[in-house]
Amino acid sequence: MTQIKNIGVYTSGGDAPGMNAAIRAVVRSAIYYGIDVTGIRRGYDGMIKGDMFPMDRKSVSNIIQRGGTILKTARSEQFKTPEGRKQAYENLKANNVDALVGIGGDGTFTGAHIFGLEYDIPVVGLPGTIDNDLCGTDFTIGYDTAINTVIDAVDKIRDTAESHDRLFIVEVMGRDSGLIALRTGIAAGAEAILIPESKTDLQSVFDRLEKGRKDKKSKIIMLAENGIAGDAFEVGRQIKEKFPNYDTRVSILGHIQRGGRPSCMDRVLASRVGVAAVEALRDGHRNEMIGLIHNEIAYTPFEHALKHNVEINPDFLKIVEILAI
Amino acid sequence: MTQIKNIGVYTSGGDAPGMNAAIRAVVRSAIYYGIDVTGIRRGYDGMIKGDMFPMDRKSVSNIIQRGGTILKTARSEQFKTPEGRKQAYENLKANNVDALVGIGGDGTFTGAHIFGLEYDIPVVGLPGTIDNDLCGTDFTIGYDTAINTVIDAVDKIRDTAESHDRLFIVEVMGRDSGLIALRTGIAAGAEAILIPESKTDLQSVFDRLEKGRKDKKSKIIMLAENGIAGDAFEVGRQIKEKFPNYDTRVSILGHIQRGGRPSCMDRVLASRVGVAAVEALRDGHRNEMIGLIHNEIAYTPFEHALKHNVEINPDFLKIVEILAI
Amino acid sequence: MTQIKNIGVYTSGGDAPGMNAAIRAVVRSAIYYGIDVTGIRRGYDGMIKGDMFPMDRKSVSNIIQRGGTILKTARSEQFKTPEGRKQAYENLKANNVDALVGIGGDGTFTGAHIFGLEYDIPVVGLPGTIDNDLCGTDFTIGYDTAINTVIDAVDKIRDTAESHDRLFIVEVMGRDSGLIALRTGIAAGAEAILIPESKTDLQSVFDRLEKGRKDKKSKIIMLAENGIAGDAFEVGRQIKEKFPNYDTRVSILGHIQRGGRPSCMDRVLASRVGVAAVEALRDGHRNEMIGLIHNEIAYTPFEHALKHNVEINPDFLKIVEILAI
Amino acid sequence: MTQIKNIGVYTSGGDAPGMNAAIRAVVRSAIYYGIDVTGIRRGYDGMIKGDMFPMDRKSVSNIIQRGGTILKTARSEQFKTPEGRKQAYENLKANNVDALVGIGGDGTFTGAHIFGLEYDIPVVGLPGTIDNDLCGTDFTIGYDTAINTVIDAVDKIRDTAESHDRLFIVEVMGRDSGLIALRTGIAAGAEAILIPESKTDLQSVFDRLEKGRKDKKSKIIMLAENGIAGDAFEVGRQIKEKFPNYDTRVSILGHIQRGGRPSCMDRVLASRVGVAAVEALRDGHRNEMIGLIHNEIAYTPFEHALKHNVEINPDFLKIVEILAI
Repeated sequence: MTQIKNIGVYTSGGDAPGMNAAIRAVVRSAIYYGIDVTGIRRGYDGMIKGDMFPMDRKSVSNIIQRGGTILKTARSEQFKTPEGRKQAYENLKANNVDALVGIGGDGTFTGAHIFGLEYDIPVVGLPGTIDNDLCGTDFTIGYDTAINTVIDAVDKIRDTAESHDRLFIVEVMGRDSGLIALRTGIAAGAEAILIPESKTDLQSVFDRLEKGRKDKKSKIIMLAENGIAGDAFEVGRQIKEKFPNYDTRVSILGHIQRGGRPSCMDRVLASRVGVAAVEALRDGHRNEMIGLIHNEIAYTPFEHALKHNVEINPDFLKIVEILAI
Repeated sequence: MTQIKNIGVYTSGGDAPGMNAAIRAVVRSAIYYGIDVTGIRRGYDGMIKGDMFPMDRKSVSNIIQRGGTILKTARSEQFKTPEGRKQAYENLKANNVDALVGIGGDGTFTGAHIFGLEYDIPVVGLPGTIDNDLCGTDFTIGYDTAINTVIDAVDKIRDTAESHDRLFIVEVMGRDSGLIALRTGIAAGAEAILIPESKTDLQSVFDRLEKGRKDKKSKIIMLAENGIAGDAFEVGRQIKEKFPNYDTRVSILGHIQRGGRPSCMDRVLASRVGVAAVEALRDGHRNEMIGLIHNEIAYTPFEHALKHNVEINPDFLKIVEILAI
Repeated sequence: MTQIKNIGVYTSGGDAPGMNAAIRAVVRSAIYYGIDVTGIRRGYDGMIKGDMFPMDRKSVSNIIQRGGTILKTARSEQFKTPEGRKQAYENLKANNVDALVGIGGDGTFTGAHIFGLEYDIPVVGLPGTIDNDLCGTDFTIGYDTAINTVIDAVDKIRDTAESHDRLFIVEVMGRDSGLIALRTGIAAGAEAILIPESKTDLQSVFDRLEKGRKDKKSKIIMLAENGIAGDAFEVGRQIKEKFPNYDTRVSILGHIQRGGRPSCMDRVLASRVGVAAVEALRDGHRNEMIGLIHNEIAYTPFEHALKHNVEINPDFLKIVEILAI
Repeated sequence: MTQIKNIGVYTSGGDAPGMNAAIRAVVRSAIYYGIDVTGIRRGYDGMIKGDMFPMDRKSVSNIIQRGGTILKTARSEQFKTPEGRKQAYENLKANNVDALVGIGGDGTFTGAHIFGLEYDIPVVGLPGTIDNDLCGTDFTIGYDTAINTVIDAVDKIRDTAESHDRLFIVEVMGRDSGLIALRTGIAAGAEAILIPESKTDLQSVFDRLEKGRKDKKSKIIMLAENGIAGDAFEVGRQIKEKFPNYDTRVSILGHIQRGGRPSCMDRVLASRVGVAAVEALRDGHRNEMIGLIHNEIAYTPFEHALKHNVEINPDFLKIVEILAI
């Protein structure tokens, strides 16, 4: 068992609902195990600037239900340089921080990975991103909340779509991943889903619209950002051109997808992996992301957690096709 | 007392949450008073096409809580022509409809007004629009729900704004009216509000940003569509140019503002004016909008209800300035 | 113009959503007018114990959207004694507080009224209670949120009621007032509403059930607490006895009605009266509640604001009867 | 491959959010595979009474987002008798139903199991219950929505608890299972959780309250119904007696937990197992529940799906203890 005395905790990259629940779990479980905790503001940026403060159990009272992150977040160009990381290391040492828990996505872990190799401070990561685009965990913290936010929005849009017999193209987030679009598309009863992974082009949507029910003109097309078909405006333009009889509209849900009170599952996930992160550091783990696979805690080296391998279950696309009948 | 035997009810223009509650109130109260009810689909378009059906009390069961309109809605170019209106009149006669309740906004009432002058069918209107841009009622059906939808969204955006120290320009609906932006701006704790009525230009926003707290970089600017300052992208571009130290983002809330389960107040309003509309027709009213002023039923001739005179309470703008200190 | 230098602000009695928005408005507008602000914790209890602290504009950042009250609240027996009030006065003087804004309901104003008569500290009050049982304002801060919370809950209960063909008796808050039950009953499509003001007895409910549709067995009866018909269990017992063919269930919504993010209207109301309270103190007002009547700021002496005269609009009860047809 | 021509679908037992999404998936996928669908109202009761009707793809339009069940549900004593089941069988034959999909919990599957053994109609089941108390699936349809409803409610209660420094005992559903209490307790930041499985008695709660922070008096105790410690009132009584310095309140959430719009995950789960049920019948499966284990479709014989073996992960209880520090 490593003798950890002071854990630094930070959030980095895009914020995600449940990050506060994760911070709370790290702080409370560290204290439970007799370890001090240092809060680092704005991720690597705060590390470099020395923006740190001691946290106690009251620091994290009444935050489990809040969106965003009380530690704030930022992207740091400087941390990509050896000088930046050296400065960060010196600030951590000056604050007696001898272990780190970083909460974020692949940018966070890329930084943590390099830092963990260069310096003698063990780092573990928690998957905090709405995009669910990490290996080593079934779900990332924030994904469940984000997909509920999306279906709340689409349920509202559907009211209008039904009332006006309109076709709506709804663009959702996900960076290079279609996982938000995929589950929300099924849950929203979408006519078709366009995601980067399947390299879905518009022809498949045209086919659906041609084959589909002619008596039902209110339809939802769910579109993940960054797909090959273009953005929602481009997709809208082409559908209008090819199907002028549809009253076609575009809705880009945007930043509402990142915020909001975390769902029950996101809070539970964040609490479980937060506790596990502290226990992992005590057990000598380092350079790993702590996730949940098949409802059990899973430890994945940072280099494997990075997102590039997440696969799409082909059954999901089949289900969309069947249910849009 | 006019002997009304069959009331036709329709929704027209943009849909608004609470329209179903209004339809329910019209149907149930007509039946209560021994009057038949005919549902007309897609507003004036359905009138012209003869798309009508008898409604009973079960037709409106379990709809009070639903967004959209079960009668659907559409805009009709044809109804603007004498031929279109003549066709509508003949269809109504063929269906024994001898009075009308139209639910919608100024387009709805413009049509109703002309039709009511030309033909011997009394028409009354109910204010159904999220924009709150009608005279003759303190609030329109749908406004209260829409402003709650907006603040739900902005509360989520604020999580991200706070976490990233970002400035967000949030564009909301309202057509030519800033009333959605005004109340939601106050409720969201916005730094500044841009609305068409005050012809607010960007200079006032620049002033706020220059005078405002330098230590707080997360800010919300609430923007009504169709203002003189341009749309959210244009406003964002100018703020970025002038205040490059702010991390500025744009969010256009879009169509989610039209849908969703109606709020309690919208359901109560819709129920009250729906009952009052039937009672008004029985009492011989015609060519009037039935609204609520100072919590009492108010009858306003269509020509006065049209939106062009709604005034903005200057206190509201003062409050924004004070509270953004 | 009175020269106010330091305003003490407190919340007292039951908490209500929007109290934080009111605190924020008082603090920010005082600072805007160059006045210091002192936060007093737990109402009169904190006054007596000297639990006070200076507030600045950052003290109220990011609270406009939160339920509850950051100043906490309590009931104080000691403040009912001259000794208690004397101690409070001395603590206020020791903290240089020379004016007070109290946010709460009739207990709050009763205390404020006596204190304002006895001592040379001007006090104004803001109506903060979910019960809407004060004269001098159309709505109290918290009422709109509470009625939305109730209809959210009843919409959920209705899903079960419809699926199982059940009759539900739903008990809501209101102390001696039926205003929560009244509006939510209309908005929930209730079969009958039992409120203290109309001294509705169970016979009227029995009549409704006997006259009502026999083919629809899923029904909602909305019951205000403290009516003459007894609580929900008693009402349920009697309905079960008399209508054994109904599958009757009871739901007491309880404390969820007091919490939650305030609605847009509650935030706007709180912001408006909060600013007006500070302006009123500057203008020499004292011993008045600041409310909103017909959308304008209204000043009502405490002794008139107390709840005993709030009347029920008889139209509302008629509407329930008509719409439950 | 069995030649199925007409699938009967029904819901039975307590309703759960997502049942409509499951019905929709069964109907649409049956049609996709060229199979007719018969809707059976009120479960076994409707089977016995012959309350059945043909469903097409439009029958399930616009229901994916609705709580409850459009097929209604009921409990049937008669189906427990051989005569009842014989009558059901004859009605199914008369309607040409040659396969069944039953959606519900253990009562549903007990009935389906016996019926499937006695008659030559293959039956498969879908796990539809908020209690999550079935083996053969990681989650039941409705559980995720219910736990989100609970934390929404507890977040509201927490506002009041914090404002008044109160201790709340919150009782949630679950029949003999503590799984709702367990996850919501973690997500709500509860001080202690009482569940049937761990036979937690009150002594453990007393210990927590004695060891816990003395400076924080607002606490949540989460209580599953039907535990050995008694109901919320009994637990409240004992805590009040032993800890008179706490301001202790009780809240029984009740029937709101069964209703509401289904969460994204519940809709996706319902859609996946609904499609899989039809495919399973085509593939010759019978007398099995179709669930999801480790994100893959799983087929479990009815006799194993029944709830008696669901285990509680001991880590969860440890997490509660750690995080309530």
